[in-house]
Amino acid sequence: MSTIDSMSINALRVLSADAVQKANSGHPGLPLGAAAMAYELWAKHMNHNPKNPKWPNRDRFILSGGHGSALLYSLLHLFGYGDLSVEDLSQFRQLDSLTPGHPEYGHTVGVEATTGPLGAGMAMAVGMAMAEAHLAAKFNKDNFPVVDHYTYVLGGDGCMMEGISSEAFSLAGTLALNKLIVLYDSNKISIEGDTDIAFTEDVRMRFEAYGFQTLVVEDGNNPEEIGAAIEAAKADKTKPSLIVVKTKIGFGCPAKEGKASAHGEPLGAENITALKENLGWPSMEPFYVPEEVYANYRAIAEQNAKVEEAWNAMFKKYCETYPEMKELWEKQHNLDIAKDLINNEDFWAYEDKADATRNLSGMVINRIKDLVPGFIGGSADLAPSTKTYMKNEGDFSRENYEGRNLHFGVRELAMAGIGNGLALHGGLRPYVSTFFVFSDYVKPMARLSSLMGVPVTYVLTHDSIGVGEDGPTHEPIEQLAMLRAMPNFTVFRPADATETIAGWYYAITTKTTPTALVLTRQNLSQLTGSSKDALKGGYVIEDSMKEVPDAIILASGSEVELSIQAKAELFKEGIDVRVVSMPSLELFDAQPKEYKERVLPNSVRARVAVEAAIDYGWGKYVGLDGAYVTMKSFGASAPANQLFKKFGFTVENVVATVKSVL
Amino acid sequence: MSTIDSMSINALRVLSADAVQKANSGHPGLPLGAAAMAYELWAKHMNHNPKNPKWPNRDRFILSGGHGSALLYSLLHLFGYGDLSVEDLSQFRQLDSLTPGHPEYGHTVGVEATTGPLGAGMAMAVGMAMAEAHLAAKFNKDNFPVVDHYTYVLGGDGCMMEGISSEAFSLAGTLALNKLIVLYDSNKISIEGDTDIAFTEDVRMRFEAYGFQTLVVEDGNNPEEIGAAIEAAKADKTKPSLIVVKTKIGFGCPAKEGKASAHGEPLGAENITALKENLGWPSMEPFYVPEEVYANYRAIAEQNAKVEEAWNAMFKKYCETYPEMKELWEKQHNLDIAKDLINNEDFWAYEDKADATRNLSGMVINRIKDLVPGFIGGSADLAPSTKTYMKNEGDFSRENYEGRNLHFGVRELAMAGIGNGLALHGGLRPYVSTFFVFSDYVKPMARLSSLMGVPVTYVLTHDSIGVGEDGPTHEPIEQLAMLRAMPNFTVFRPADATETIAGWYYAITTKTTPTALVLTRQNLSQLTGSSKDALKGGYVIEDSMKEVPDAIILASGSEVELSIQAKAELFKEGIDVRVVSMPSLELFDAQPKEYKERVLPNSVRARVAVEAAIDYGWGKYVGLDGAYVTMKSFGASAPANQLFKKFGFTVENVVATVKSVL
Repeated sequence: MSTIDSMSINALRVLSADAVQKANSGHPGLPLGAAAMAYELWAKHMNHNPKNPKWPNRDRFILSGGHGSALLYSLLHLFGYGDLSVEDLSQFRQLDSLTPGHPEYGHTVGVEATTGPLGAGMAMAVGMAMAEAHLAAKFNKDNFPVVDHYTYVLGGDGCMMEGISSEAFSLAGTLALNKLIVLYDSNKISIEGDTDIAFTEDVRMRFEAYGFQTLVVEDGNNPEEIGAAIEAAKADKTKPSLIVVKTKIGFGCPAKEGKASAHGEPLGAENITALKENLGWPSMEPFYVPEEVYANYRAIAEQNAKVEEAWNAMFKKYCETYPEMKELWEKQHNLDIAKDLINNEDFWAYEDKADATRNLSGMVINRIKDLVPGFIGGSADLAPSTKTYMKNEGDFSRENYEGRNLHFGVRELAMAGIGNGLALHGGLRPYVSTFFVFSDYVKPMARLSSLMGVPVTYVLTHDSIGVGEDGPTHEPIEQLAMLRAMPNFTVFRPADATETIAGWYYAITTKTTPTALVLTRQNLSQLTGSSKDALKGGYVIEDSMKEVPDAIILASGSEVELSIQAKAELFKEGIDVRVVSMPSLELFDAQPKEYKERVLPNSVRARVAVEAAIDYGWGKYVGLDGAYVTMKSFGASAPANQLFKKFGFTVENVVATVKSVL
Repeated sequence: MSTIDSMSINALRVLSADAVQKANSGHPGLPLGAAAMAYELWAKHMNHNPKNPKWPNRDRFILSGGHGSALLYSLLHLFGYGDLSVEDLSQFRQLDSLTPGHPEYGHTVGVEATTGPLGAGMAMAVGMAMAEAHLAAKFNKDNFPVVDHYTYVLGGDGCMMEGISSEAFSLAGTLALNKLIVLYDSNKISIEGDTDIAFTEDVRMRFEAYGFQTLVVEDGNNPEEIGAAIEAAKADKTKPSLIVVKTKIGFGCPAKEGKASAHGEPLGAENITALKENLGWPSMEPFYVPEEVYANYRAIAEQNAKVEEAWNAMFKKYCETYPEMKELWEKQHNLDIAKDLINNEDFWAYEDKADATRNLSGMVINRIKDLVPGFIGGSADLAPSTKTYMKNEGDFSRENYEGRNLHFGVRELAMAGIGNGLALHGGLRPYVSTFFVFSDYVKPMARLSSLMGVPVTYVLTHDSIGVGEDGPTHEPIEQLAMLRAMPNFTVFRPADATETIAGWYYAITTKTTPTALVLTRQNLSQLTGSSKDALKGGYVIEDSMKEVPDAIILASGSEVELSIQAKAELFKEGIDVRVVSMPSLELFDAQPKEYKERVLPNSVRARVAVEAAIDYGWGKYVGLDGAYVTMKSFGASAPANQLFKKFGFTVENVVATVKSVL
């Protein structure tokens, strides 16, 4: 390799090692081992323009092994992304710096996804590749490949061990996502030691089984070999590619190379010196990079800017030639329908008959698909049950990337990761779906949705013991608490059609918050008191005649109707209560204090929460003087109406519980 | 095949179809398709004694595709397990019946594990096979193979798609668990249709990559072919085996065979008739089974009882020959150390110096290993960080099954499933470990621990923003709420050494509840007020001088010390508060009302919860008049002490918050 390439690679190593050392915290092992492949990819193969990190047709790069963030920051600095400075690198892992411990989307320019939980980046990359395939199928015209980019993802042994990557790559193979290129940093070292203690599988054969092209780079420090593999990966037009790159963790640092100790702690001052000497680095000064190295990176960046210029020219002509496509493009990339939709009577219409909120959600999905062209989604093999199928929109498959209905297979976790990838790519508004109880599987990736602030919608049906015969393994009890407790995540559990539509309205118009719609399997009546006030998260759905009610019943979803029935019964006995529907605790909490006081006056301490879930979390609204009609245990297997009775969700019990707090 | 075999297989089909039909709910597809393999296995190959379902050396069978429960119940009925009657089958999926929608461990005799969430059974089977390998290595002597059984698991395409099975089987291959035999009911149908829409991978090649022997049965209705494959699987002494059994979902029912509609709904009365006609069944009467079929099953069961008798004779001689092994066996299978341990001073000893609770936990683990011989466990590639390594106990590997330290690799979900399998097997007391934030990944299997009531211990370290530089992806915020909300699951977040030991005391002595120990990365001081009262979940750790305190501060873990410091500061200002340490909300909730009133007098409404986690769930104790010093968002990347300050965990802020509620 040329001297300048060699020095440019070593610059990544040195900067990364210095950043970790200065922070006295971090992971030097991956940056040292993977520097050559990162440089080769970013410098010689990837289409990207540091001066416009949001160029829609850029190649995507995800560092799935997010602990190697120092490598990514070093790349971003050297290529001139967001003017990330040496000072920023020296503030690695410090409070409010641009260089946090793991890459954070929306925080550091050029970071395509928040990574750190291993394997997550793999699933997000599959989502991005699916987005590319879909948008290409939809938008490209002869001679106008306006969507035409690769998705690269780099991860190590840990990423390969995590189940999410198996799920995601099995689907990627099925879908023949040939523009997905996986760089496997294979160093055979994990935190507990040699990977042989837990991971002797033949990863390459596994990927062959998924339907990948597989390639091996024997020397992970040989850029030519890496480059040839990347070109071979690009050349395969029918399969995604895995490139096994054999590397040495901590490469270049004599005392650490090939050892588990290289992974997650600073090298130490002496080893930094030894590293620099060993690499022939011209200076021992921390964060020193020779000017010719900067010049090399700058030159590449400038060259890359021209690639975007050419695309811009093509896209301009495309927009002139296909004005209807230009309009569609705009709609998919910059849709703002909140104002229109709130007064769109067709959107808010429903039939006045009892129905399951999952069915009503299915109805709304089939309205949104016509209003939001970037709307795309599907289920983890449960669409007939979760009612998430968009009629006449086709199925996304290797034969039909234009289809809008996604089939994730029985892979909830990867589904959610892919949902994040679809959202991160741009141009799409994804939803994903499974049974509510399986939100347990979804949780790690839902957390990433929240952290990144990407508005993925989670359609979670079969929301309580209303599941019935399938029994406790399928009956969510604690899942409402699990999701409500998560920051920047909105849970919406509607009580009828109006509230279901409100939930979808919120989900499809919010810009920075993922939403879970928690829906029933069983039919619910339409409630006369329900309204768009549901968007406030909590509102008075049936009020008392008195100015100050005798008591307040708080309920959500299927328990609102029950509460209203109990109210009527109590009224007969001279007890005049207010019923507050609480479809979303998070949205209610975000209301002005005055509104909350109006709905739940502080002076009224006789409060009862009614929800077919664990009581955990309701204490904030119910207080020390209130009571609960909630689940105290897991559910059981029986017809749903018998279960509601068994677990106390009866008018009699709600009435008695209200009386107990008067 | 013989007529009686054929009829015995069809009996499984007919009973299953009738049960689903009677319930008007359930899954006939799997039972019809997999009846032949189930019969062949249970009748001709499996060592089991229906009259003693807890025989320690029985072969284990797990129905990972738990929706096919009707098949399992039909087997249990015909073999005479627990006298499961035709009446029980006819009560399939009804309230309080012995035949719930999915198999439930501890509820129906002969059910080895609760299944339903797909893939879970696969991981539990790997855990059981690891238990067998470990116990065999430990207990077997020349001519006394007292632990010598197979673990069979049966699952379908869904189980294979779930990431947990990839994680578990990759580890099984690494560990060369040759007595694990996986029966893959390959019918190529999923709920959304042909598996080709989401799952075209070569499953057999994938398992070859893991290091399995793989076998294929072309005709899943041919018992001879199935039997030959099972024998070939048993014959391989170096590898676990996958048997791909090609089946037809809904076999025998002309209108449903091979269709997605066979999966999860009753066949319908007409199709039941058609099924019985097609199979040449002698009667249309529901649940009818000819006497000769019963006789066949009975004869097999009696034959099987003799296998146990032979084992019993051998075991008796073993105990006579090796009295020390007998004692060890007793200790591993029926240990009851609660009473001894509570007064064991060595167990409760600690050094009076600041230390991280993860370190203190590591100290306790290394005490328990000598007290509890069945104690076994490990981490998802984080043992050096979670401090879960047992010194001088060796590493469990294909070369050394006697090792007690398990290396799960970066596979949190499978780890927890395997933990369940280890516990279910009997003879072992497992713990599993990862960073607390990754309890997100663990959750679906922790839920199964809770549902089944198996006392797996989850050692979850790095418990808050105390993680520091690794940043928000690694900082648990909502995980305490997530786990506390789960029924029959105990979360214990200790504040110092005494509380850490108490947490482990609880975890290792509880019989029916899984426990999470939530531990710090950073050092904590030893508190003078801490005591074994921590076992009550909440207790007064520093009291006010007044009989009725001015206010109560409730805190857990690292925030207890902060609260005590704030108390001292408040006292200087004439405000006399009580500090309540709450290591476990669940244990506190379970205390008598009087105790709870003594600790948290109802009259004291000035209450402040202090915990470096989301406030969700504390309202129950804090009420409408209290306040919180808690997290309101995700964390950040910086040294931990800076984060505690940034997010308000300072004496000043706790003092100010207490004042705000006075």
